[in-house]
Amino acid sequence: MQVAILLFDGLTALDAVGPYEVLWRMQDAEIAFVAAEPGPKWTDNRALALVAERSLSDVQQPDILVVPGGFGTRALLADEALLDWIRRVHATSVWTTSVCTGSLLLGAAGVLQGLDATTHWLSLDRLAEFGARPVQERVVRQGKVITAAGVSAGIDMALTLAALAAGDDVARAIQLNIEYDPHPPFDTGSPRRAPPEVIERARAGSRAAQAR
Amino acid sequence: MQVAILLFDGLTALDAVGPYEVLWRMQDAEIAFVAAEPGPKWTDNRALALVAERSLSDVQQPDILVVPGGFGTRALLADEALLDWIRRVHATSVWTTSVCTGSLLLGAAGVLQGLDATTHWLSLDRLAEFGARPVQERVVRQGKVITAAGVSAGIDMALTLAALAAGDDVARAIQLNIEYDPHPPFDTGSPRRAPPEVIERARAGSRAAQAR
Repeated sequence: MQVAILLFDGLTALDAVGPYEVLWRMQDAEIAFVAAEPGPKWTDNRALALVAERSLSDVQQPDILVVPGGFGTRALLADEALLDWIRRVHATSVWTTSVCTGSLLLGAAGVLQGLDATTHWLSLDRLAEFGARPVQERVVRQGKVITAAGVSAGIDMALTLAALAAGDDVARAIQLNIEYDPHPPFDTGSPRRAPPEVIERARAGSRAAQAR
Repeated sequence: MQVAILLFDGLTALDAVGPYEVLWRMQDAEIAFVAAEPGPKWTDNRALALVAERSLSDVQQPDILVVPGGFGTRALLADEALLDWIRRVHATSVWTTSVCTGSLLLGAAGVLQGLDATTHWLSLDRLAEFGARPVQERVVRQGKVITAAGVSAGIDMALTLAALAAGDDVARAIQLNIEYDPHPPFDTGSPRRAPPEVIERARAGSRAAQAR
């Protein structure tokens, strides 16, 4: 089962690495990190590079597509070569998935037309531009299309996907292998429960990170 | 505030990327991915490389040290140059931390002598070899030394650390920025609650991954 994980400059590392860490543990998974140009792809803050070994043309019919997000998605919303690749891959994929603002790329490719979908809470209203119905849930499945909320939500999405693709028993064991028994120190991970001052600070943090 | 994250061949990507994704969001953080030899470092399954830009000699007094785990730690337990670097960094660090079997490297460097510490549940009994008291908790703090359990526990550790280093308000906002509102699909992330057949499957999965 081939899993293509898209990389690009300006991606959010955890969006890609969370699903990767889950999905490679499916016994017959072959992970392909793909990019328009193979090589190191720098994260949103330019402190880390993840290496894409494969080109888009080299990976044409993966079973699973994972599109991560990050500030770098903006420059790609009008990248017709990339959007064409997403459309072609989606035509034959078993599962087409995104994490965080990766769903905006699926949207720009037309994949989310008429579907419920989610993304990072700060970008949720943008989904309507692509004909999707924005839903503030952590993992949203519509047939073979699965979108996840911001950054860390890719781990929950990938475990859900592993259960669908390889069975609950496999996903349960993977969850134990990555010791995913989360105990966040605060209850501020969702804008539905975070107090207003935390939401304002998070908005300011995001603006400052983009400006850097 | 300089944060040094150690990379090496055979690391588990999420061990490094989870804390990175939290800690770079502290306003004055400077992240340095360091390795004995700078360049791409391949993960445990060799499907992904993370690029280390800095050498050990180039990063001598980081405020925070993060040591990730992975099968690659075994080859490093007798790497005196690396263990010396860990000892020297620990002598002046504000916080010395590990994720998963990264704690075995801290142990081999002598950092855990007489301390409570944790690691991936499959390696927990190894901590006693280094004079540590193994504790099956997700995040264990002993003074300035913080060890985390397996793989995904690095996210919880880093949020705890961000609260200690930059204040609760900062950590709460970071948790919202990475939308860390976990909803695992199963309750099998801890060996304390996973049923025996899930534990056996996870052990077999780990053995198979090592063999590959």
